[in-house]
Amino acid sequence: MAKKPNKLKARLPRGFVDRSSADIRATDAMIAKIREVYERYGFDPVETPAFEYTDCLGKFLPDTDRPNTGVFSVQDDDEQWMSLRYDLTAPLARHVSENINEIQLPYRTYRAGWVFRNEKPGPGRFRQFMQFDADTVGAPGVQSDAEMCMMMADAMEALGIPRGQYVIRVNNRKVLDGVMEAIGLGGEEHAERRLTVLRAIDKLDKFGSEDVKLLLGEGRWDGGEKGKGDFTKGAGLNTAQINGLMDAYLLHGVKQFAPGFDKENEGDLAGLGWVAPEVIADEEKFFDEAHAYNVGMKELQLIWQIVAACGYTEEQIKIDTSVVRGLEYYTGPVYEAELLFDVTNEKGEKVQFGSVGGGGRYDGLVKRFTGRDVPATGFSIGVSRLMTALKNLGKLGQDEVVAPVLVTVMDGDTEALGRYQKMVQEMRTAGIRAEMYQGNWKKFGNQLKYADRRDCPIAIIQGSDEREAGQLQLKDLIEGKRLSEEITDNVTWRESRPAQITIAEADLVATVQKLLAEQAEDRVKVSTSSADTSTKGDA
Amino acid sequence: MAKKPNKLKARLPRGFVDRSSADIRATDAMIAKIREVYERYGFDPVETPAFEYTDCLGKFLPDTDRPNTGVFSVQDDDEQWMSLRYDLTAPLARHVSENINEIQLPYRTYRAGWVFRNEKPGPGRFRQFMQFDADTVGAPGVQSDAEMCMMMADAMEALGIPRGQYVIRVNNRKVLDGVMEAIGLGGEEHAERRLTVLRAIDKLDKFGSEDVKLLLGEGRWDGGEKGKGDFTKGAGLNTAQINGLMDAYLLHGVKQFAPGFDKENEGDLAGLGWVAPEVIADEEKFFDEAHAYNVGMKELQLIWQIVAACGYTEEQIKIDTSVVRGLEYYTGPVYEAELLFDVTNEKGEKVQFGSVGGGGRYDGLVKRFTGRDVPATGFSIGVSRLMTALKNLGKLGQDEVVAPVLVTVMDGDTEALGRYQKMVQEMRTAGIRAEMYQGNWKKFGNQLKYADRRDCPIAIIQGSDEREAGQLQLKDLIEGKRLSEEITDNVTWRESRPAQITIAEADLVATVQKLLAEQAEDRVKVSTSSADTSTKGDA
Repeated sequence: MAKKPNKLKARLPRGFVDRSSADIRATDAMIAKIREVYERYGFDPVETPAFEYTDCLGKFLPDTDRPNTGVFSVQDDDEQWMSLRYDLTAPLARHVSENINEIQLPYRTYRAGWVFRNEKPGPGRFRQFMQFDADTVGAPGVQSDAEMCMMMADAMEALGIPRGQYVIRVNNRKVLDGVMEAIGLGGEEHAERRLTVLRAIDKLDKFGSEDVKLLLGEGRWDGGEKGKGDFTKGAGLNTAQINGLMDAYLLHGVKQFAPGFDKENEGDLAGLGWVAPEVIADEEKFFDEAHAYNVGMKELQLIWQIVAACGYTEEQIKIDTSVVRGLEYYTGPVYEAELLFDVTNEKGEKVQFGSVGGGGRYDGLVKRFTGRDVPATGFSIGVSRLMTALKNLGKLGQDEVVAPVLVTVMDGDTEALGRYQKMVQEMRTAGIRAEMYQGNWKKFGNQLKYADRRDCPIAIIQGSDEREAGQLQLKDLIEGKRLSEEITDNVTWRESRPAQITIAEADLVATVQKLLAEQAEDRVKVSTSSADTSTKGDA
Repeated sequence: MAKKPNKLKARLPRGFVDRSSADIRATDAMIAKIREVYERYGFDPVETPAFEYTDCLGKFLPDTDRPNTGVFSVQDDDEQWMSLRYDLTAPLARHVSENINEIQLPYRTYRAGWVFRNEKPGPGRFRQFMQFDADTVGAPGVQSDAEMCMMMADAMEALGIPRGQYVIRVNNRKVLDGVMEAIGLGGEEHAERRLTVLRAIDKLDKFGSEDVKLLLGEGRWDGGEKGKGDFTKGAGLNTAQINGLMDAYLLHGVKQFAPGFDKENEGDLAGLGWVAPEVIADEEKFFDEAHAYNVGMKELQLIWQIVAACGYTEEQIKIDTSVVRGLEYYTGPVYEAELLFDVTNEKGEKVQFGSVGGGGRYDGLVKRFTGRDVPATGFSIGVSRLMTALKNLGKLGQDEVVAPVLVTVMDGDTEALGRYQKMVQEMRTAGIRAEMYQGNWKKFGNQLKYADRRDCPIAIIQGSDEREAGQLQLKDLIEGKRLSEEITDNVTWRESRPAQITIAEADLVATVQKLLAEQAEDRVKVSTSSADTSTKGDA
């Protein structure tokens, strides 16, 4: 009964990807920089596992176009459903609630971790991605939201994104809720419609105002006309409501209703949206200080005043009433980090890079468990998206990791292998990255090809003659390759170092160290020299 | 239609845990040290996602006592089954196979990541845990296995585990396969039984020899006697076979059959197991050089000679034929990192800490996909287990992270909040960890309680009087607390610094920096002083 080799196809499920060395190193460096900012702000790490009970996570995801609610779920032995977390906020609320008696509030924590969404994958849209969150739980005042916005701005700058290339935009769900109430969408019976409205407004960046109007009205066909592509059902607003929302609140802004708030005296608040009086159903109620719209506006005002007192400008943090955030659990201020430089999308169009993260206040999430008010606010950075952005900006700046020194294998007997490996271990002990060739040693050409493709800086060669003489050959692989490609006037450099030398075996470590140092020096010269060239080119 | 607050119970599914700040920081520090070793050995990071198609993962898990094969699986939209990875090796084999035309072999990579097992959770047994793997793919010779063993030993030492407290034990599946063939368990028809035998031997550490004999024979009751607890079916060997395996091969070792291998000349190989002649079914076949047993012994010999040539001793790396490793995909050398110090288990018994990782050669995993021989070897460290071990050894050595300076809130008006927050931002800009109190500021006692429970080093206080005078109060919280607890003869210290001082607002940053530096100095004194005390105690 011989086993037939059943050849499997090696493939990944759609929406999942492998990560390369360069991406991992760049992500790690990026996360380290952001972590430094969070730590300086007084946040500590806390993490939760990938799985939660499904009821603990709740249903707050914006995606409604799939039957399985956008998450990956399995049933446990005891028949309870558990799901992979779709964000890091719902699990944090569970963690705080479970440990509410031990935790000292306010509870300031951060965490980086993978989250999972069972969505239709698309270009740049993955089913597993990393978020990097910070939250303050037990923080009733919007001074916490102000702090979050400043921390996001500081994180962007710590990553080297220049001022003017990013902005933290801030809105308040209460303001939007107030406007919706004003146009007759208040009350529990309109909860579903309000959500549809929020999600429509959230797509303003992506779709433009005409398509958003369709989503606010009857609905929208993906393909642009009836019958083409999928149909997304709209919020069913009438024309007056749509115009009130779009033209008055979002696009033009003609008057400011927040009591005690005077646009003339608050010139810094340009960009704040106004509501057109003609769409207000009940003016008296709307003018009341306690109206959600006015409460929300006051909160935005306070946020702005705090960040302004700390020296942040509108270039960095901007009140902008078009910000929505798709998640359902937000109850107050919401904010978004946007990158403003252009990139080319998959259709070849120039578009703003857009959002790399955001967050907001979620005062109700812990209450779901504890029945007790535990107000909270926090934000989430989309790690992969931000990394893509930094790549575009040339700001990744991960140090180039030098490949290992390769000790080649000329003889495969036990004694020779022991000697080669010993050379390697001596170099490693001295802190040098090194390895012995581990493939089939009999084809020496393969060994040099390997060294070349891996960008090894140095190859060590010792045949039986050299071994007897206690010597070895040291091949400078950079000299022969990289410099000649990158530098045109490097005649003197090339002459200054021979490509291959014979040394005494005892001098191995010292010689390799010296050569690696010289190569490192050359790299500095190369980067300086090319920086010179590009400066000249600009002049 | 008012919403009823539906109070949910905040809880985690069994076998999953949250991670504290201290654990996260310790794990990160530990991983960084191990990563440094892997990098020095010439390995680069590569990662795969959490999900794989179920058929790509294969069924190699030792756990056979559950119906759902030990993994978490979900069905995708196109009805294909996908599973969360149960280790990092099977996904690596998929990754290499999928990219075999682009990858330069040998392919030397490492990765840390979460893996998932749908097992019955128990004390110290989790359904999500982190592994940290290194693999060389495309490495036909056992010199690669030798390198893996040295890298594991170096990793243990990089973590500060002293020589003598750890050992890397090495065996070869071929040796075991040879022994099993010799006692009549060769051939495809005994594949299942061989696996049961391997898993029984693997439990030698855990259960002791009497119970393992039961597992090799009819089977074993968890409760120790018939009808008590669960029953694990045994391999069904007869007494001669059991004694051959246990007494001859594993426990006593009376003769060495590997041709060309002479115990007298290889004194270093003490600890190698021998097979008793009386259990050999076919001596002639067994004496043949090509017999799995002899091939395996030769490979072990080569591994030993290479590591010995590099200066490793039997205290660090030891040939030990009782090592098995539970996973089914190993085809050659297998190795295990064991910690030798005693810990107290949940029953209050003193036991050796045991395995913190291991690995082996898996020449068949890539072939499953490519049909082509791509021999490979690698190992995996159990991150959480190793961290627990380091905690026990007092070797975690994570730097104590100083908590943030707390700016308390005496007034909650916009202007005051702006001023407090500005102080905080100034400190942060100067690199000082700082925060404004974000809870309900009206109860000042809560603010000081928060500072105390969080171990804040300094509190800043500014009421309206101080504000008008351009001053603030600076409270040294360490002075009042930690030192008085830890030091008995600190009268001079306590007198040297006042617990509260009034300073000009403009001097905030400089004064805080000075005070933090003084506190850091005190901490050094404290640790030196307590080290002195313990030395004296020993003398």
